[in-house]
Amino acid sequence: MRTSIATVCLSGTLAEKLRAAADAGFDGVEIFEQDLTVSPHSPEQIRDRAAELGLTLDLFQPFRDFEGVPEDAFAANLRRLEAKFQLMGRLGIDTILLCSNVGTATIDDDGLFAAQLRSAGELAERYGVRIAYEALAWGRYVNDFEHAQRIVDLADHPSVGTCLDTFHILSRGWDTAAVADIAAEKIFFVQLADAPKLSMDILSWSRHHRVFPGEGDFDLVRFMTFLAQAGYDGPVSLEIFNDSFRKAEVGRTAVDGLRSLRWLEDQTYRARQAAGAADPAGTMGLSPLPEVADPAGLDFVEISTGRLGETIKLLHQLGFRLGGYHRSKPEYQVWGQGPVRLVVGDQGPTGAPAGIRGLGFQTEDPVAAEKRAHLLQAQSVPRETAADEAQLRGVYAPDGTEVFFSGLADSDYPAWLAEFGVSETDVSEDPLITGVDHINLAQPWQHYDETVLFYTALMALETHAHEEFPSPIGLITNQVMRSRNRAVQLLLSVAPEDGEQGDFLDAAYPEHLALATSDIVAVARRARQRGLNFMPVPDNYYEDLAARFELDPAFLTQLRDNGLLYDRDEHGEFLHFYTGTLGTMFLEVVERRGDFAGWGEANAPVRMAAQYRKVRDLERGIPT
Amino acid sequence: MRTSIATVCLSGTLAEKLRAAADAGFDGVEIFEQDLTVSPHSPEQIRDRAAELGLTLDLFQPFRDFEGVPEDAFAANLRRLEAKFQLMGRLGIDTILLCSNVGTATIDDDGLFAAQLRSAGELAERYGVRIAYEALAWGRYVNDFEHAQRIVDLADHPSVGTCLDTFHILSRGWDTAAVADIAAEKIFFVQLADAPKLSMDILSWSRHHRVFPGEGDFDLVRFMTFLAQAGYDGPVSLEIFNDSFRKAEVGRTAVDGLRSLRWLEDQTYRARQAAGAADPAGTMGLSPLPEVADPAGLDFVEISTGRLGETIKLLHQLGFRLGGYHRSKPEYQVWGQGPVRLVVGDQGPTGAPAGIRGLGFQTEDPVAAEKRAHLLQAQSVPRETAADEAQLRGVYAPDGTEVFFSGLADSDYPAWLAEFGVSETDVSEDPLITGVDHINLAQPWQHYDETVLFYTALMALETHAHEEFPSPIGLITNQVMRSRNRAVQLLLSVAPEDGEQGDFLDAAYPEHLALATSDIVAVARRARQRGLNFMPVPDNYYEDLAARFELDPAFLTQLRDNGLLYDRDEHGEFLHFYTGTLGTMFLEVVERRGDFAGWGEANAPVRMAAQYRKVRDLERGIPT
Repeated sequence: MRTSIATVCLSGTLAEKLRAAADAGFDGVEIFEQDLTVSPHSPEQIRDRAAELGLTLDLFQPFRDFEGVPEDAFAANLRRLEAKFQLMGRLGIDTILLCSNVGTATIDDDGLFAAQLRSAGELAERYGVRIAYEALAWGRYVNDFEHAQRIVDLADHPSVGTCLDTFHILSRGWDTAAVADIAAEKIFFVQLADAPKLSMDILSWSRHHRVFPGEGDFDLVRFMTFLAQAGYDGPVSLEIFNDSFRKAEVGRTAVDGLRSLRWLEDQTYRARQAAGAADPAGTMGLSPLPEVADPAGLDFVEISTGRLGETIKLLHQLGFRLGGYHRSKPEYQVWGQGPVRLVVGDQGPTGAPAGIRGLGFQTEDPVAAEKRAHLLQAQSVPRETAADEAQLRGVYAPDGTEVFFSGLADSDYPAWLAEFGVSETDVSEDPLITGVDHINLAQPWQHYDETVLFYTALMALETHAHEEFPSPIGLITNQVMRSRNRAVQLLLSVAPEDGEQGDFLDAAYPEHLALATSDIVAVARRARQRGLNFMPVPDNYYEDLAARFELDPAFLTQLRDNGLLYDRDEHGEFLHFYTGTLGTMFLEVVERRGDFAGWGEANAPVRMAAQYRKVRDLERGIPT
Repeated sequence: MRTSIATVCLSGTLAEKLRAAADAGFDGVEIFEQDLTVSPHSPEQIRDRAAELGLTLDLFQPFRDFEGVPEDAFAANLRRLEAKFQLMGRLGIDTILLCSNVGTATIDDDGLFAAQLRSAGELAERYGVRIAYEALAWGRYVNDFEHAQRIVDLADHPSVGTCLDTFHILSRGWDTAAVADIAAEKIFFVQLADAPKLSMDILSWSRHHRVFPGEGDFDLVRFMTFLAQAGYDGPVSLEIFNDSFRKAEVGRTAVDGLRSLRWLEDQTYRARQAAGAADPAGTMGLSPLPEVADPAGLDFVEISTGRLGETIKLLHQLGFRLGGYHRSKPEYQVWGQGPVRLVVGDQGPTGAPAGIRGLGFQTEDPVAAEKRAHLLQAQSVPRETAADEAQLRGVYAPDGTEVFFSGLADSDYPAWLAEFGVSETDVSEDPLITGVDHINLAQPWQHYDETVLFYTALMALETHAHEEFPSPIGLITNQVMRSRNRAVQLLLSVAPEDGEQGDFLDAAYPEHLALATSDIVAVARRARQRGLNFMPVPDNYYEDLAARFELDPAFLTQLRDNGLLYDRDEHGEFLHFYTGTLGTMFLEVVERRGDFAGWGEANAPVRMAAQYRKVRDLERGIPT
C-alpha cells in the first residue's frame, strides 16, 4: 500500500516535515499550500529535496470556493486555479484537491457545478494535471461524497475525479458502502482521518480533533474494504488536523502516523481475507503484519519506586514473598503471590521514570509479536541476557513503559524464575491475591492518542469507556483499554495539562497496580496486622456512602474498620483499598462481587484528595 | 450585594478553598458536596472554620435525581435527602440545591413533580431548611426555569423555592425577562456563570467551559436587572466548572471571581440608573464602582528588550528620536515620534519579563481609575517618584504588564516628558509614524480569561472577533480587545499549551507593538536606508498573493521591493511589515487604507515561520 501524509499533520518547517515523513518511512506527502507559502525554499527546491529523500509529492491542497459562482467570479477563480497549476508544474505534482464550495457559491445547481468543473478539467488537461473534487462535510451545497461523485460523473472529463476523505464522510454518518461502486479510475485520491465521537459543530471537530486511524471511533477498516473492492490503487494518505500533533515533536508524530497506516493495512487485509477475498492484497497491494493473538495475561510486572525498603515492606504486608535475586543482575529481585510476579528493580536515581516500569504480556508467539512491533516501528528495549537466560523481547511504549513479549505460561512457574533462584516449590502457597485486576498507567497528555494506537496495534487491546473525575489539581481522564478476553486490563490516566501545581503531579497523581482478591477483608486484616500504611479514608466518605446506598450497618462497619472503599452497579459490587504512595506509585487491592463493570472511579476523588494532602503536608514539613 | 462562590470553582482542598474565598473578600461559599466528602474535616470543623474566616455557608449542593419517580424509589430518595438535611444541620447550612431529574425520572407529570417536592418541603421544614429547585439545561423533563417555577408554585410550600442558574438559562437561549415576574420570596438562590458561545453539547459546555461573569458571551447584566426588579435580596454566587480554574492557583482564581462580581454589580447598578430606577441599589444593595471613561489613547508604551543597543538602533531606523534620560532614574530613556512615546528601560537581566512592560492609558480621571482598580483588587505597581515628579498610578495586569493611568493629554507634550529633559520644541517634527495601531500581548493560556475580565472591568475595553492561525509550533489564538472609541486596541495572543518545543516560545512567539502610518512605503524606505533588519518574506508569499488578489504588477513589485505584506477585505486594504525580533518582542508598522477591519492575521503564519526558522538556526549555531 502506498502511504502518504499531508504536511499539515506535522509541526515545524516544510523542510523538517519532509525529513520526518521520509525518516518514518512514508512513500509520499501531500503539500499543504500554506506550508509552501511560508517557506523560504522555492518550489523547485522542494521538488528536489523530496526526490532526494525518496518521497513522491502526491497532492497539492487545498483549493477552495471554486464552483457554483456567477460568470465573472468564475473567470477570476479559473485564473486563480491556473496560477496553482503553474506552481504544481514547478513542484512536479500532478493532482490538486478542490474542496466543495463553502463560502462563495450562490447557485445550487449540479449542472453548473459540473460544467465549471469540466472547464477546470480542460484547463488542467493543458497543464497535464488532475483535479480531485472533495465534498466537505460543511460544504454549502455539496457535503456528501455520493453527491460529489454524481457531479464528477456529470462533469465527465478525464482530468476531473474524486477525493474521498473519511472525516468528511464519517462525521456526517454517511454509509461508506457506496465507495465500492465508484469507478476506480475516478478515485483520484484518498485521505484518511479518524476522530473521537464528539457532539460539537463539525468544523471545529474537524479542525482540532482529528486523530490517526486506530486512535478514534470511526470504522475505517470497513471504508478500506470498500475502497479495495472499488479497485483503488493510489496512495492512502493521512490528513489530520490536531492541536496536539501541531505542537508535538515532528519525528514522533510521523512515526505514529505511519504506524496507524500499517495497522489499518493489516486490519483491512485480514478483513478481506476473512470475507473470502480471492486476493486480499488487492489493487492497493495490502500486506499483513505477523498476527498477534490476545494476550493471555501478565507474566510479570516490573516496578521501580526509588524506595526499595518501603517497597519490600509493603509487598510483605500484602502477602508477597521474596523469590530471590537475579543471578546476573542482582539489582533485580522477584516477589510472588499466587500467579502474580513482581520484578522489583533497585536502581536508585538512574533518571529512569519511577513507577510501573515494565509489563510482560503472555503471548502465544513472542517472536511474531516482536516482529510485528518492529514493523510498527516500536523501539526495542536493550537488555543484555546471558546465553543461558531467557531472551527478553521488549519495546518501549510511548510513555516509556517497557512492554515485553513473554511466552504462554504452561504452569505457574515460568522458566525465567530459575534465573532468580526460585524453585518450583517456593511458589506453592495459598495466596489471597489471585491476579492482577488492572494496571493504571499515568499518561502524559501529549502522547495519549499515540499510546492508544500502540496498545491497539501491538497488543490487540481495545478501548472501552472513558471517565473523567475531579482531583484537587484538575480533571483526570481514565481510558480503559483491555484485551477481548479481559486477561489484560489497562487504564490510561491522563493528567491535566501543565497546571500551576506541577510538583503535585509527581507525587500525588501516581500510577498503580490493582491486585485482585476474592477476600479483601482477609487481605486488609493481614495487611493491617503487618502495619500497612493504608491511604486514609475520611469519615465523611462513609457517611455519604450510607446515604447513597442504604448499606447494612454491620457491612458499613466492616468497610470502615478495614479502610475499604465501596461501589456498586446493577451487576455487582466493588470493594477496594489503596496503599499509601511509594514515590510516584502505589498499590490497590480490589474484590469484585458479581459482574461489577467499573473500576471504582467514584472513589478516585477520595484518593486524589488524600494524596494531594500528603504532598502538601510534606511541602510544609509536616511528617506523615 | 452579598457575594458567594461554589467551592467547585476552586482548586485544592476544602480548607484551602475556604481560605482563598475569605482572602479574596467573598461573603460566603456554597459547599459542593464532594469537596466535603473527600475532606478529613468533620462538618462541624468546616462550620467553625468558615465562621472563623467570616464566611457564611450559603448553600449545600447538589442533590440529584429526586422527583418524577415511582413511589418506592421516592421513599428511598426521601431517605437520601433526609441524610443530607442532617448533614446540613451539622454544617449550619439552611438551603440545599435540588437539580431537576436527569436520570431516574420516569413519569412526566408536573403534578407529581410538585407533590414530591412538597413532601420534600414538609421534611425540610422539620429540619428548618429550604430546598432550591433548579432546572438543569439537560433535565429530562424540566429544563426551563419558567417550567421549574411553575412546579415550585404548584408545590406551594414555604420551604420550596427556586434556584436560578444563568448557565442553565442562557445556554438554552431562554429569555431572562421572566425573572422579573418571579415572587422574590420564591427565589431561594442565584448562581451566576458566563460562557463563551460554543456549538457543542450543553453538558460538556457546562462542565468544562463556564467562565466568570465578564469573561464570556452571556448578557448577565440584563439578567441581573430583572433579578433586581424581582426584589431578590439573597447572595449572588458563582458556580463555574472550568478545566483551567480547576488547576490554577486557588487564591488567584478567587480574586478573579470576586472581581467579576464587583464588575457585574457595578454594571447592573449603572444599567438600573440609566433606566431611571428610583433606587438603583435595590434590594440586593448594589453598589457602583468609580466610573472609568473610555481611554483616549496611549500616553506611552514601556518596553524592555534586554538588548538596549539593538533596540536603540531599531528605533532610529523607524524614525524615532531620543528625547532624553529620566533625571532620577537614568536607566529609563524616552524616544518619540509624533504622538508616540516609548519609554525604554535598560534594566539588564533583572528577571522581569522582557517585552512590552507597561502601557500608559490616557484616562479622564486617573485617581478614580486607580481607585476602581484597587476596588477590583488589582495589585499596585510600586514606583518611587520624587516630590517634583508626576505620580505614576499603576497596577499589574494578569500577565505582569504594568498598566498605568495617565491623565488626558492637553497637547503632544505631557508634563512628565520634562523629567526626561524633553522640551516642547524637541517633539516638533514631521513624523511618518502617526500613532499606535495596536498592541499585541503574548498571554499565558492559564490566565487568558482573567486578562479579558481585567481589561473589561478596569479599562472598559470590549472583546471582539478572535481568530486562530497556525504556526510551526501549534495554533495561536488572537483575541481582539478594544475601547469603544477604538483609541486603544489590544490583541491578546494565546500560545499553545505546553508543547514539546518550549524554548521556541521565548524567542519566536513574541509580543509586539504595531505602529500606524499613512505612508508605509516611506517608512520602509527610510528604515531600509538606515539598515533595518526586516523580517524576511519568502518569494512564495508574493506568488500566492498575486494568485489570490490579481494585484497590479507594479504594486506587487512595490510590495516585494519594500518587504511589505498585504491583505484586504471588502472595506479596505492593509499593508504592513515586521521588524526582526528583539529578544522576545518586535515591532510592526501598518498602514490601513480605507476601513480594513482586520489585523493582518492572514500573514501571521509567514511571520511565525520566519521567527521559528531564526530560532532553529540560532540553536544550530547558524549566524543570522
